[in-house]
Amino acid sequence: MPTSAYVRPAPSEVLAHTHWAACSNAASCSEQVHLMLGGPGEVIVSFVSASASVPSEVSWWADPRHPSTAVGVADAYSLLMSVDLNLVVPQMGLPDLSLKRLVDMEDTSAWAFNPFTGARGANYFHPEGAAQLHWGLGQYNNPQMVYDSPVIHTVALRGLSPGKAYGYHVAGHRRNYSFVLPLEPRGDPPPYPFTFALTADLGQTAVSAVNVVRLREILEAAPPGRCAMLLGGDLAYADGFHPRWDTFGRMLEPLAARFPQLMIGGNHEMIAGEGWVPYNTRYPSPARSSGSPSNLWWSRDVGPAHVVGLSSYSNASPGSLQYRWLVADLAAVNRTRTPWVIVMTHVPWYSSNALHVAEAELMRQAVEPLLYHGGVDLVISGHVHAYERVLPVYQGCLNRCAPAYLTIGDGGNREGASVQWSEPQPAWSAFRESSFGSGALDIINDTHALFNWSRFACEGSTSPDHVDFNRSCESMTWGPFARRDTSAARHKLIKSRGEQRLGEVKTADEGR
Amino acid sequence: MPTSAYVRPAPSEVLAHTHWAACSNAASCSEQVHLMLGGPGEVIVSFVSASASVPSEVSWWADPRHPSTAVGVADAYSLLMSVDLNLVVPQMGLPDLSLKRLVDMEDTSAWAFNPFTGARGANYFHPEGAAQLHWGLGQYNNPQMVYDSPVIHTVALRGLSPGKAYGYHVAGHRRNYSFVLPLEPRGDPPPYPFTFALTADLGQTAVSAVNVVRLREILEAAPPGRCAMLLGGDLAYADGFHPRWDTFGRMLEPLAARFPQLMIGGNHEMIAGEGWVPYNTRYPSPARSSGSPSNLWWSRDVGPAHVVGLSSYSNASPGSLQYRWLVADLAAVNRTRTPWVIVMTHVPWYSSNALHVAEAELMRQAVEPLLYHGGVDLVISGHVHAYERVLPVYQGCLNRCAPAYLTIGDGGNREGASVQWSEPQPAWSAFRESSFGSGALDIINDTHALFNWSRFACEGSTSPDHVDFNRSCESMTWGPFARRDTSAARHKLIKSRGEQRLGEVKTADEGR
Repeated sequence: MPTSAYVRPAPSEVLAHTHWAACSNAASCSEQVHLMLGGPGEVIVSFVSASASVPSEVSWWADPRHPSTAVGVADAYSLLMSVDLNLVVPQMGLPDLSLKRLVDMEDTSAWAFNPFTGARGANYFHPEGAAQLHWGLGQYNNPQMVYDSPVIHTVALRGLSPGKAYGYHVAGHRRNYSFVLPLEPRGDPPPYPFTFALTADLGQTAVSAVNVVRLREILEAAPPGRCAMLLGGDLAYADGFHPRWDTFGRMLEPLAARFPQLMIGGNHEMIAGEGWVPYNTRYPSPARSSGSPSNLWWSRDVGPAHVVGLSSYSNASPGSLQYRWLVADLAAVNRTRTPWVIVMTHVPWYSSNALHVAEAELMRQAVEPLLYHGGVDLVISGHVHAYERVLPVYQGCLNRCAPAYLTIGDGGNREGASVQWSEPQPAWSAFRESSFGSGALDIINDTHALFNWSRFACEGSTSPDHVDFNRSCESMTWGPFARRDTSAARHKLIKSRGEQRLGEVKTADEGR
Repeated sequence: MPTSAYVRPAPSEVLAHTHWAACSNAASCSEQVHLMLGGPGEVIVSFVSASASVPSEVSWWADPRHPSTAVGVADAYSLLMSVDLNLVVPQMGLPDLSLKRLVDMEDTSAWAFNPFTGARGANYFHPEGAAQLHWGLGQYNNPQMVYDSPVIHTVALRGLSPGKAYGYHVAGHRRNYSFVLPLEPRGDPPPYPFTFALTADLGQTAVSAVNVVRLREILEAAPPGRCAMLLGGDLAYADGFHPRWDTFGRMLEPLAARFPQLMIGGNHEMIAGEGWVPYNTRYPSPARSSGSPSNLWWSRDVGPAHVVGLSSYSNASPGSLQYRWLVADLAAVNRTRTPWVIVMTHVPWYSSNALHVAEAELMRQAVEPLLYHGGVDLVISGHVHAYERVLPVYQGCLNRCAPAYLTIGDGGNREGASVQWSEPQPAWSAFRESSFGSGALDIINDTHALFNWSRFACEGSTSPDHVDFNRSCESMTWGPFARRDTSAARHKLIKSRGEQRLGEVKTADEGR
């Protein structure tokens, strides 16, 4: 069944701003707590407060009788709301947002007058209909359309012991949280098994909310310290309606305040006046600790894997900052300590969906040889709102020494599915389905992993408004990827690496 | 002559990217060096390098035989180019940029194909004319239209002595620079005289280039340590064509590598996909040292003045972060140490130009009482491309206890002049003219200052392409502002401050 017979129903219901409740007393209540993996032994705590008088402090402890206090920095940003007609398109739009309200938001006539003479100015913006709505803020002279972030606190907890449980709470609120720093390679044998929970293109729909619950279940099912969360870009789908970053933070908190994460940014972190600002301010990466000058690309050893995040929207051509960083980063991988190398990019290089075909082609041409000769095992992407598993492939040819690819862009956002597939299905496409779900990658030993993709949040096809939260609805467990053929010879080659270049071993088919 | 008879000629010639030469060997050459005022005793050095292998280091010395090394941080950003039709409008556009080239930049057809099948994708972007050009990047799937910044290094030099001369050079280049940290109030009598060089809405035209030379001359004419540079927003006018930030950095270097500056951001730092990213990354403010969570608003004691930068595009209503910060900041001013309080905002509150009328009205309504009761002396703004001097005014009424206002938005950018004035001229408007120029504010003692505005780069009215670099062309020196009536009684009140509220003293006219 290389192409699934499953027909994905309509886009999911977008949940209202009020779905994830803010604190009852916003003035004195820190919220949107989440953990990001920093450098080795480091977890970065991010939280927001309405007031700048809340200090950027986190109390944390291994033993609650002896808490420590870590101090970080506060940041805030102001951005124009991007008043985009997409916001009132049903499948893209905000709940309850009418065209009239959108026009009202841009219409400055209610206040724009000369207060001393009563005269009106020459350039007031009086939209009379949709055709006059501008991308952006019309004459950007309505200050009520500037979004001001809450105070965003970023506090690093350093010198932590991997595998150890810690408690913490953030300034401005007494809720206690706990987490376990994922195991790190420190000369010990790699920790097996180790679970990565995976999603991308998450958004804030009914399905997104279920996905957050499901991802937490995946992580809770793993032994403490033997799991981590990877998010492959396109987070809040705020698209310039910036308060949506706050609701996203509330949605993610039950997962992200407990399990440290690694993320990359997607196009929705960049377009519509986003410019990476909310993303970079709220979701710090281990860029500094991995020698990257940009928050958008980074690496971090996690469990038995060296995980690399790349930016699909930054220069990756030879000689570019990102390219040169990647060359140095892959050259420094110690395959004894991290036998696995996993790369994340937002835009897939190998996708047989009809949408976004070859969008990352220039990046693929430049970077694919680095990943191949660097012995990368798996490349995880989002962007295409579907699930696809791709056999090990290099430059379009099946190749047992090449990385396998996963597209997991069906995290649940509002934009709808990418249901149309290119025909015939390419030889490298092992399985493809447009569904809603999330994945668990269980790394078993130096050469084998199991991957399970669950269409857990299946919507009833006869009732598009219904979301079935019962995971007994169809589920897919993938044998083929579980028996992924990673030959001992290849791993020997990869371990020795050096200047040796792997030959291309073309295979006609692999496990289909 | 309350309204000048001068008729400003056409917009100035935009200078090409190549006007300000990059280093001859970009791969190993740091450039765009500039100094920003940090906290007390601190100067922040910013420079860029093409390579991330250049360390974020600055060597500096009071005595060249004993240099120190300061280490900072590196940053880089990637942003979409904003492909805007304005770029080919003559007065707004980039030199030599044709509509065809703009279309070519968005047209992804040259590369967008499935490399393995030759098939074309479903969502390629094939513009056939101007009407199809999008704000932004069409389908944002042409990675060649992503701008990648060079590595931006930010290094703080701390513990400096105000008034002392220092030499320095930045990593990656051997050019030596020098600067004198402006005097700071440290219990000593305020340093008089003290000169502030002022400009706003600078851009990168022939007039901008002359303005940089002129501003440097103003600062060089002041005794060392008794001058500083204030820039009131709208810097590069890159407007989403991000390489223009690099040419702006080159243009500014001869001024900014030698004289530490204070800046605020304007609308051109925010719109067109800018989102403050280039501005905040390249132009750090003393926000942290003044307790502000945002780079967009800050304060700093300079010479005899407490200088406050506010953001016209951030929330300033009561209860907002900015408002609460400003309340605390003004309450902490020591009028004995800094008898003068100067505020910068990008959008003027009092302007009688026909453009941008009352755009900042909501901010004025919220914040004006704070400035009035805080005893602010002068508010400097840009945005309107003209020069206007406003008598001390509060809530529309002449009031000797209120701040005076200056609009200085004629720094020289490409957008053209704001030549139309509202009639009749309001009673608070002392003088107005649409010109090109820059200003020097000389603070003489606790109660008096001189302000000189020079229309130095006057273009010949009969020859619009001609820029006369000879400052012997018309110049305006303003007596009225020099004899600004700041009564001893008012200063006594301001110094005592406390809970006492200043009464409104309305005057029918003032020195006209």
